[in-house]
Amino acid sequence: MIGQLTGLVGQIEGERCIVDVNGVGYVVSASTRTLAVLPQPPSVARVLIETIVREDAIQLFGFATTDERDWFRLLTTVQSVGAKVALAILSANNPGELLLAINAGDKGSLTRAAGVGPRLADRILSELRNKVAKMPGGGGTVSAPGIVSGPSVENDALLALAGLGFRRAEAWPVLSKVLAENENATLDLAIRLSLKDLAR
Amino acid sequence: MIGQLTGLVGQIEGERCIVDVNGVGYVVSASTRTLAVLPQPPSVARVLIETIVREDAIQLFGFATTDERDWFRLLTTVQSVGAKVALAILSANNPGELLLAINAGDKGSLTRAAGVGPRLADRILSELRNKVAKMPGGGGTVSAPGIVSGPSVENDALLALAGLGFRRAEAWPVLSKVLAENENATLDLAIRLSLKDLAR
Amino acid sequence: MIGQLTGLVGQIEGERCIVDVNGVGYVVSASTRTLAVLPQPPSVARVLIETIVREDAIQLFGFATTDERDWFRLLTTVQSVGAKVALAILSANNPGELLLAINAGDKGSLTRAAGVGPRLADRILSELRNKVAKMPGGGGTVSAPGIVSGPSVENDALLALAGLGFRRAEAWPVLSKVLAENENATLDLAIRLSLKDLAR
Amino acid sequence: MIGQLTGLVGQIEGERCIVDVNGVGYVVSASTRTLAVLPQPPSVARVLIETIVREDAIQLFGFATTDERDWFRLLTTVQSVGAKVALAILSANNPGELLLAINAGDKGSLTRAAGVGPRLADRILSELRNKVAKMPGGGGTVSAPGIVSGPSVENDALLALAGLGFRRAEAWPVLSKVLAENENATLDLAIRLSLKDLAR
Repeated sequence: MIGQLTGLVGQIEGERCIVDVNGVGYVVSASTRTLAVLPQPPSVARVLIETIVREDAIQLFGFATTDERDWFRLLTTVQSVGAKVALAILSANNPGELLLAINAGDKGSLTRAAGVGPRLADRILSELRNKVAKMPGGGGTVSAPGIVSGPSVENDALLALAGLGFRRAEAWPVLSKVLAENENATLDLAIRLSLKDLAR
Repeated sequence: MIGQLTGLVGQIEGERCIVDVNGVGYVVSASTRTLAVLPQPPSVARVLIETIVREDAIQLFGFATTDERDWFRLLTTVQSVGAKVALAILSANNPGELLLAINAGDKGSLTRAAGVGPRLADRILSELRNKVAKMPGGGGTVSAPGIVSGPSVENDALLALAGLGFRRAEAWPVLSKVLAENENATLDLAIRLSLKDLAR
Repeated sequence: MIGQLTGLVGQIEGERCIVDVNGVGYVVSASTRTLAVLPQPPSVARVLIETIVREDAIQLFGFATTDERDWFRLLTTVQSVGAKVALAILSANNPGELLLAINAGDKGSLTRAAGVGPRLADRILSELRNKVAKMPGGGGTVSAPGIVSGPSVENDALLALAGLGFRRAEAWPVLSKVLAENENATLDLAIRLSLKDLAR
Repeated sequence: MIGQLTGLVGQIEGERCIVDVNGVGYVVSASTRTLAVLPQPPSVARVLIETIVREDAIQLFGFATTDERDWFRLLTTVQSVGAKVALAILSANNPGELLLAINAGDKGSLTRAAGVGPRLADRILSELRNKVAKMPGGGGTVSAPGIVSGPSVENDALLALAGLGFRRAEAWPVLSKVLAENENATLDLAIRLSLKDLAR
């Protein structure tokens, strides 16, 4: 149901935080890596979300990159690897390290994650060995967490500026000028330069 | 529960996209036809939604027109036609073509949709033959996807302008003037003319 | 979960409408009486909501007054009276008429509602006869649908003005002045007088 | 799913109230203590939330402090202590009193709560005796309900000012100046001083 949240991150406790979107604070579970890179208030953070619905819970799992989310989806296909264990594995390994570990049959990288013993590590290696060829992190650049560049900078900057209270009708012309004058501007640069102009 | 979303469309992947409404990104499954006509950011898109709740999922299915949504509801009454197959049929046929196919007993139009074999096509034809008389697309004009004209242009334009950050108290007087001066203005024209005035 | 929605009403079809709150359109089922009195756009409507969660649905039922909602809660305690039948009874009778019918054992008032036959009417009369003493509509004034007067006018007017895009910091001082100068101002009067001042 | 709500409190009835966040009114159950300290409109209240999902309900339980929420989580681990009884116990005892009662084996403090008889009180005392060492309220200061001081004042003040309609881009510089000039400003003081400046 929910695939993405853009808001203020707060109350980081263990593997959870609150992402506050205009007054509704959503409880998001994430790997310690993702929690560590999420921009702190007053900056606005955008988190990719996987919603898991059960009879007794509706849980939101958050990721800084599509790579991490795709690995979460693949890990949770393995029998006995639930969301919590998948997050623990992603806290212990980034996507690139995970791909290397599975290709190399390296159990150690998996067992250093909480909740993963030798037997479960064996099962992960055997079930996933033939499924990781197309997984991200294999030689391609691991997209920097939270930093999005390229065509969607415009959308994300618009969202962030809207999150800061600027009307899209005001923000958009200023942002377009900034993007025209700074060809490969990252999201962070686009927002900062626009703010300079808008805050005048 | 949710019947409509008005927001920024993004991350179109396969038969899914994200509709971001003020910072909450909803995962919406839709036919490839609908995904192809949804306005791209920074324009605001309005998508009709059918919410389907199951024990392990809350899914949102999106439609550009009430016709498409009504056909989705009818198709999913047929045994073994779930939401995914119904979307595949609607990706392969627009409402008008679907009505012709069922009236003409044309299996081919149905089997070109992913997941529909000859036997399922037969069942669709036999179960729906006597139920399509009142279905849209039968001689009536298929309302252009996403383009709404007539009395609800005022509401939709108000919503779109609100989505762009304009207060209703500001937008409404300007919009009323535009609609008074342009009798059968479509939603798109109404928004553009209002923006010209408001952005001054 | 949801107890109230304040937004733009649209797409009234049969016993359902959409209440659009900042871009999320909620599907609300209501009695034909309630649907008939809800303010039309661009006015903002406030609807009291009863959320009913089942394994295969999350449904929102809307009411113009607390009386109607309380009767809905009481009617649905009767065996075989589900939400749909309760709404049909409330479409056929307002709270005052319902109280009279039950006190007088008047089956006719109940059977004119869709889905209520003589046997079910008998059961409603027998199960509720001793439970209606404290129900609203019994001699007390039936609060006019949608019109709220007294202490909560300030909150509701604030919400409505916020819905129209006015910042609470702007709306509140103006509203306080209006309420001070017009002692028993109804919600409608409070909003109109505030708008005159704010729109200058 | 939801861990926090920031909005306008209204319709306080028994152990429930509505927290209205931008037009969506959430039904929140809370202890009478919490309901008594929540700021009234037009002030914006921030309530910590525990979401409990069942097959036939999605319920939100609200708390003014993390202490109260932690005790709620601990109490509901005891067999036969559901959310309603836990709230009743928290209505009858604040966290400090609860800690004293359990350490002292004081049944009376528990049985004064609705729904707690002598046998259930015994079970609570025996099950929790060895689990309360780390519970808040044990000698540490009971964080004043609703009043948050220290580093998160900035976030909460930003949220409150945003709730009052001030753009973060406007509110933030003013708030930073206020916090710089008033080192240990509480949330309430920070908001009032900022409002003075912003409302000019």
